[in-house]
Amino acid sequence: MKIKYRIWEFLENIHPEDKKVRIERYFILILIVLNVMAAILGTVKSIEIKYEVFLYNFEVFSIAVFTVEYILRLWSCTSDIRYSNPLSGRLKYLVTPLAIVDLIAILPFYLPILLLDLRFIRIIRLIRIFRIAKAARYISSLKLFGRVFKEKKEELLITSFITSILIIISSSLMYVFENHAQPDKFADIPSTMWWAVATLTTIGYGDVFPITFEGKLLAAIVSILGIGLFALPTGILGAGFVEEFHKSHSKQEKKTCPHCGRDI
Amino acid sequence: MKIKYRIWEFLENIHPEDKKVRIERYFILILIVLNVMAAILGTVKSIEIKYEVFLYNFEVFSIAVFTVEYILRLWSCTSDIRYSNPLSGRLKYLVTPLAIVDLIAILPFYLPILLLDLRFIRIIRLIRIFRIAKAARYISSLKLFGRVFKEKKEELLITSFITSILIIISSSLMYVFENHAQPDKFADIPSTMWWAVATLTTIGYGDVFPITFEGKLLAAIVSILGIGLFALPTGILGAGFVEEFHKSHSKQEKKTCPHCGRDI
Amino acid sequence: MKIKYRIWEFLENIHPEDKKVRIERYFILILIVLNVMAAILGTVKSIEIKYEVFLYNFEVFSIAVFTVEYILRLWSCTSDIRYSNPLSGRLKYLVTPLAIVDLIAILPFYLPILLLDLRFIRIIRLIRIFRIAKAARYISSLKLFGRVFKEKKEELLITSFITSILIIISSSLMYVFENHAQPDKFADIPSTMWWAVATLTTIGYGDVFPITFEGKLLAAIVSILGIGLFALPTGILGAGFVEEFHKSHSKQEKKTCPHCGRDI
Amino acid sequence: MKIKYRIWEFLENIHPEDKKVRIERYFILILIVLNVMAAILGTVKSIEIKYEVFLYNFEVFSIAVFTVEYILRLWSCTSDIRYSNPLSGRLKYLVTPLAIVDLIAILPFYLPILLLDLRFIRIIRLIRIFRIAKAARYISSLKLFGRVFKEKKEELLITSFITSILIIISSSLMYVFENHAQPDKFADIPSTMWWAVATLTTIGYGDVFPITFEGKLLAAIVSILGIGLFALPTGILGAGFVEEFHKSHSKQEKKTCPHCGRDI
Repeated sequence: MKIKYRIWEFLENIHPEDKKVRIERYFILILIVLNVMAAILGTVKSIEIKYEVFLYNFEVFSIAVFTVEYILRLWSCTSDIRYSNPLSGRLKYLVTPLAIVDLIAILPFYLPILLLDLRFIRIIRLIRIFRIAKAARYISSLKLFGRVFKEKKEELLITSFITSILIIISSSLMYVFENHAQPDKFADIPSTMWWAVATLTTIGYGDVFPITFEGKLLAAIVSILGIGLFALPTGILGAGFVEEFHKSHSKQEKKTCPHCGRDI
Repeated sequence: MKIKYRIWEFLENIHPEDKKVRIERYFILILIVLNVMAAILGTVKSIEIKYEVFLYNFEVFSIAVFTVEYILRLWSCTSDIRYSNPLSGRLKYLVTPLAIVDLIAILPFYLPILLLDLRFIRIIRLIRIFRIAKAARYISSLKLFGRVFKEKKEELLITSFITSILIIISSSLMYVFENHAQPDKFADIPSTMWWAVATLTTIGYGDVFPITFEGKLLAAIVSILGIGLFALPTGILGAGFVEEFHKSHSKQEKKTCPHCGRDI
Repeated sequence: MKIKYRIWEFLENIHPEDKKVRIERYFILILIVLNVMAAILGTVKSIEIKYEVFLYNFEVFSIAVFTVEYILRLWSCTSDIRYSNPLSGRLKYLVTPLAIVDLIAILPFYLPILLLDLRFIRIIRLIRIFRIAKAARYISSLKLFGRVFKEKKEELLITSFITSILIIISSSLMYVFENHAQPDKFADIPSTMWWAVATLTTIGYGDVFPITFEGKLLAAIVSILGIGLFALPTGILGAGFVEEFHKSHSKQEKKTCPHCGRDI
Repeated sequence: MKIKYRIWEFLENIHPEDKKVRIERYFILILIVLNVMAAILGTVKSIEIKYEVFLYNFEVFSIAVFTVEYILRLWSCTSDIRYSNPLSGRLKYLVTPLAIVDLIAILPFYLPILLLDLRFIRIIRLIRIFRIAKAARYISSLKLFGRVFKEKKEELLITSFITSILIIISSSLMYVFENHAQPDKFADIPSTMWWAVATLTTIGYGDVFPITFEGKLLAAIVSILGIGLFALPTGILGAGFVEEFHKSHSKQEKKTCPHCGRDI
């Protein structure tokens, strides 16, 4: 069927420069952004009370659009050779990550809300914030992110491993030193890890800190030595991004020295 | 008219190495610095009372100088071929950013201050601090800044976008976890964003921090993972500056390999 | 004896790809991780009470395994030409770092615990956490760490020396400025060093901070100038890791320009 | 006179590898370190009381050594062609930075201490800590430091200038927003700068932070944008050190491609 293929083509942005496709893309993107903003502002008491009706109507409208979009995708996906079988193809499409995200974005609205307690309703409402994930379909730069993580996987694993050991050892020692002086704040090692994280990330909220001499000495040594190790994943990620940006830039414009084959 | 051109030449620093031009430039720069210092120190109660007359007289003197400068520029700008038309040329000059800055630096003084309430007067006084922007005309190194931002625009946009998503998602989750335990500090998602910013920048004032187990766990995960992402714009800007400094240095002294054309 | 050699071969992972060897390695690694987790969670009151018997039994089982492993290593080590002499060879093996680690991991359990006071028992229990060091035998990436420290030894020494001087001088000055205003928090220079470390690492717990004008001015100057110097070891370590990762990657895949011999 | 020259040679470490010279160097260095430690620990009440006599005797001994050293240097400096004239040469030597440092290290001891009030005595005692500056003569790696600062002077100036503007503007705006809500903490712009420094360095002691909505919004924007700019001097210094270390390493072992003249 021709119209089915057209719809698939349209929703999947197969011709991204087509004017109608671009309008659709921006419409969905703006709707997602507005949904996220509505969910965020909806938690503010005064706004919730004042704009209750408006927010509810906007929610119904958004759900309607996203539901229609979801159904159209499910109906038209058979136009794609990957999902061509009416049944098994559609099932295959249903379990793709983006289709699951689309479903999660609308499903909570259709759950029998009346049966749930109030707190749960609130959380379900907040799921609207994760509609932001729907935007992943349209934003190509997020792929860059995935590439950097993949490229630096090994380095990140090693440094994460080292930082874990650092947290475990410094928490254990601090627990031994501070537990007797501050039994409520350094009650056990998992609690002490909260101190270790706040210290090694240099956040230092100030809710927990050592007060004994040995504790302070340990904290000083751990922070001077440890911050360097803790900053390693940051540095590795940063270097990875700079490299990746460089690569994607130089792809378009790179030339090579005929002598040594290096990029000029 | 010859004198008009001379004044334009003089005010615009067209011959920057001329002795009189340099004196004028340093005079205006020092006057700007003194203005900023006066505005800052003028907010200190004890100084304000003690030096009230002196500060007022200095303000009148500065306004006089800056007004004369502004009028002379406006009068002589027709010497420049860009603004040669007496009326439309002058209008065109009036809306250049630097001319607007010059106007804002003096305008508040001429507003009918008596009609305004006290707080507003204070703010108007503080506008004097932004006379610092007048200095932009003379400080060439600020252009370097603009270049770095322009060069790294794309990278900064992507990383800003990612940090925004990070703030939104971590605030939403933290709101779910902490709202019941600390309803005053984590009252709604926008309030919780204050926690997210203080944490991800590693400032950690200590006015808001999670107290529930889930909240602490989330804060630990978010801070360990997120600080790396949050430091990306910093890293990108830093790398950009180092590159830009390198470029402007190597311009004067660079040599090239005759074979592959690369800088040596 | 053939079986002795087999056991040595097996425990030392001489054929790391052999299936039985891999199972043994993973079994020991998982046992170590579980031991560390048990030691950490065992400090939590509620868990300690609820799972006391289980944790005790697990400890006995772990000690049994580690003891058998230790004895087998000690018995079979003579298969290695380095420790071939039944007596002096075994003694030589006993004082290798890894053998000492193995001994420390089991020894506390065999000490006459009844004679010791309660606090000491607790610390002995926590020694189980350092069984994590047993894992060093199996994790090759820790060698990378050692290499980076060795490579950058000189740089780290110089920057450590500079940061020490920075701490000493800023603490001395701050002590002079703040001691009279806050005699309890800035009681003496060693106490003031706690402020210096918390400031220069940017942790800023908020338990000690200057309140006098001179103290604040000093803190501002020290922090603006000093943080840069304090971050140097971090930066040097980070650069060292990136280099080291690069090296180990390029070993497998590097090519060289035939003209100048540089890596391409 | 031969002995005069020998003493000059000896004190100035002209033959640094000579055994006697090395002993003298280490003796003075250790004495300096012990002096600094004594000055630091001498501020601790309990130690001051317990070891009063010992600390006093050690001080007298140190002063004696440093005074003899100073007089010998002053007497023998005429052996150096730079200071060969008995009077004007000696005067010339007296005003070299290292000679001034040597004088400051001993002078306070000879001042009529009885005439001064107690607080002043304490400060004079602390001057002993700055005897650490005497060590500069022997530690060559400090020169590396000077070189980095000199090399990066321009970059550091520009970034310092930008960070100053950042502190001024953010403090001014924050003062406008928070002065009415917290008139004691944001009393005037200089006080607000204390907040700006604590925020932009990410220390975040937690003694001052905004509580109004506009203040928090400003703090969030300033910290996200500003931390990147504030970290620039750190990054520049770090890069400078890595370069400088590289240079001093490669000096001994660098080779050059005959084709393009670049270092290999």
